[in-house]
Amino acid sequence: MTVDGQRRGFFWDVQAGRVAPPPAAVTLGWELIAVDPEQGTIEVGFTAGEQFLNPAGVVQGGFLAAMLDDTLGPALVATLPEGQFAPTLDLHVQFLRPARPGRLVGRGRIVQRGREVCFLAGELIDPDGRPVAVATATARIMTMPPNRS
Amino acid sequence: MTVDGQRRGFFWDVQAGRVAPPPAAVTLGWELIAVDPEQGTIEVGFTAGEQFLNPAGVVQGGFLAAMLDDTLGPALVATLPEGQFAPTLDLHVQFLRPARPGRLVGRGRIVQRGREVCFLAGELIDPDGRPVAVATATARIMTMPPNRS
Repeated sequence: MTVDGQRRGFFWDVQAGRVAPPPAAVTLGWELIAVDPEQGTIEVGFTAGEQFLNPAGVVQGGFLAAMLDDTLGPALVATLPEGQFAPTLDLHVQFLRPARPGRLVGRGRIVQRGREVCFLAGELIDPDGRPVAVATATARIMTMPPNRS
Repeated sequence: MTVDGQRRGFFWDVQAGRVAPPPAAVTLGWELIAVDPEQGTIEVGFTAGEQFLNPAGVVQGGFLAAMLDDTLGPALVATLPEGQFAPTLDLHVQFLRPARPGRLVGRGRIVQRGREVCFLAGELIDPDGRPVAVATATARIMTMPPNRS
């Protein structure tokens, strides 16, 4: 997708290449497919590598949780101005079916946005279009302390 | 700790070196500290590497969730005989404080064990002894289909 290079804030600075992407996102193969900050929605691609597999040869649930955290969080972070961030307070994941290694797509949305507390939801979809896991999360919008330099 | 090399089942086969550890566990720096299958408890060390960090320079919550999944699950799997496994159905994590990269310790326990459905709980502790995240999970005991070879 084409990214609005003028828009500021951490999410947009990463997309425009002004800031390096977070290591956790690189580890998960995070790749923006679509984002709509007005609607509060996002679609993200991930790559589940062999290093995420459990004894059954499918992706360990915790790594699916990591992908969902990195879908729901950015749905909110994409709406924040410079100097704000939004740590996840709580994450609940239900594992619907096994996920094979390869590409997965996360879809996230803001369910309700308060001044400080936000409720988020989303799902992770396999290449056949089936949901492998669904999640809800609570996040808190915070303002970075002023730079004391 | 000394592992009972005679005991069978996937968990014990890995500990005794008869089976390779799962890739997800290797990625998380999983290391057994203590396990008591009679009590249904386990203690596991993890290494949170730089590749798990979020934009704030602390461990992305999803990777803490992955560590908790790989603490609570093994608390149950250590009690299972050969031919049984226990996928996680659902995982709920609360993030209490930021976790810096380095060593974290997971403590997991079986809260209630049914014939099939088991309730698990645990926490992740930082080097100062403070809990960084707590979790509950539901798992289902399943029996592997017989080998048709």
